[in-house]
Amino acid sequence: MVTNQIVTDVCSVKKPLIELANTLPHREQFVAAHPMAGTEYSGPQAASEGLFCQKACIICDTHDNDQHAVDIVSRMFQQLGMHITKMDAAAHDQHAAYVSHISHITSFALALTVLEKEHSERNIFELASGGFDSTVRLAKSAASMWNPVFFLNRENMLDVIDNYEKQIAKFRQAIEKSDQQKLKTLIEKSNKIKKVIK
Amino acid sequence: MVTNQIVTDVCSVKKPLIELANTLPHREQFVAAHPMAGTEYSGPQAASEGLFCQKACIICDTHDNDQHAVDIVSRMFQQLGMHITKMDAAAHDQHAAYVSHISHITSFALALTVLEKEHSERNIFELASGGFDSTVRLAKSAASMWNPVFFLNRENMLDVIDNYEKQIAKFRQAIEKSDQQKLKTLIEKSNKIKKVIK
Repeated sequence: MVTNQIVTDVCSVKKPLIELANTLPHREQFVAAHPMAGTEYSGPQAASEGLFCQKACIICDTHDNDQHAVDIVSRMFQQLGMHITKMDAAAHDQHAAYVSHISHITSFALALTVLEKEHSERNIFELASGGFDSTVRLAKSAASMWNPVFFLNRENMLDVIDNYEKQIAKFRQAIEKSDQQKLKTLIEKSNKIKKVIK
Repeated sequence: MVTNQIVTDVCSVKKPLIELANTLPHREQFVAAHPMAGTEYSGPQAASEGLFCQKACIICDTHDNDQHAVDIVSRMFQQLGMHITKMDAAAHDQHAAYVSHISHITSFALALTVLEKEHSERNIFELASGGFDSTVRLAKSAASMWNPVFFLNRENMLDVIDNYEKQIAKFRQAIEKSDQQKLKTLIEKSNKIKKVIK
């Protein structure tokens, strides 16, 4: 690598990649980026105009970078309409597990639950309202994209799945015990997500 | 009730209601219906033009009805653009648990998992891409709507939650064991939902 070259990436997990980059010369010219945008579709056919517009691009561990390299990469993502957020790589990987990666596990598992029970596609189609479509949408995502994410972010994935399983178990227990007050409290706590998402 | 009156309902769980109706006079004039349409919002402000258009309305246990009553109620829902599907009440309640009710549990649990970990709303907002929004959308749904559904459909809810927990556990185990082949197989099986939803 000649010293005026800058390398960036768009991977969903940042710490393992940065650890590798740390062993290479000119680490300061590798800018680790994660543009937070995408759909459940992959490949060139899935190109979508304005996909990056008004979305966040996370740039990690800039303390190890040449400032000029960070500026160039930031400007590139800003040209796509993104805003830049800087974050420690370990924190990025944990937040991403909670706010992005787990959603895929919950959708895949929902799809499998329904597909294994409902042998008639017509029944699913007839009974699925918009709510099911929305919740299961990410289950259309490709294994080639998500397998590496789950394995590279293994520790955080196990942590978030453990916490998610505990929440599911709380709902199961409230229903089993017919504890309406408990269930109401759980639902009303989860309703607070309204403040964050549109 | 005079004999030319027809009563219908729009509840999400049908068997307990029909069991009650069976104890009343003129059972044949109660037509148990479930129009499969709605959003995560409740109340008059949530009214939405065309909500019922091209959606299914399930009518249950019509063998216990007066044919004229079924025709009248069917025409009413058809006027809203719905098509009529007839189903046994017990089958309806099971299918609804799998294809509609469980999606709400998975969304509520996802919202709680994220809210309990991410104390900074800004982090959720920055990192959440469209995928998270879509998966967690139903967590905005009201307890006053879903509490009775979960309790009236208790047995089916416990069954579907048990199956869902098993699917989540398969993903957890594949990630824990770094079993990429297993994870790929699970994801590709769940991708079959593509055939059913848009």
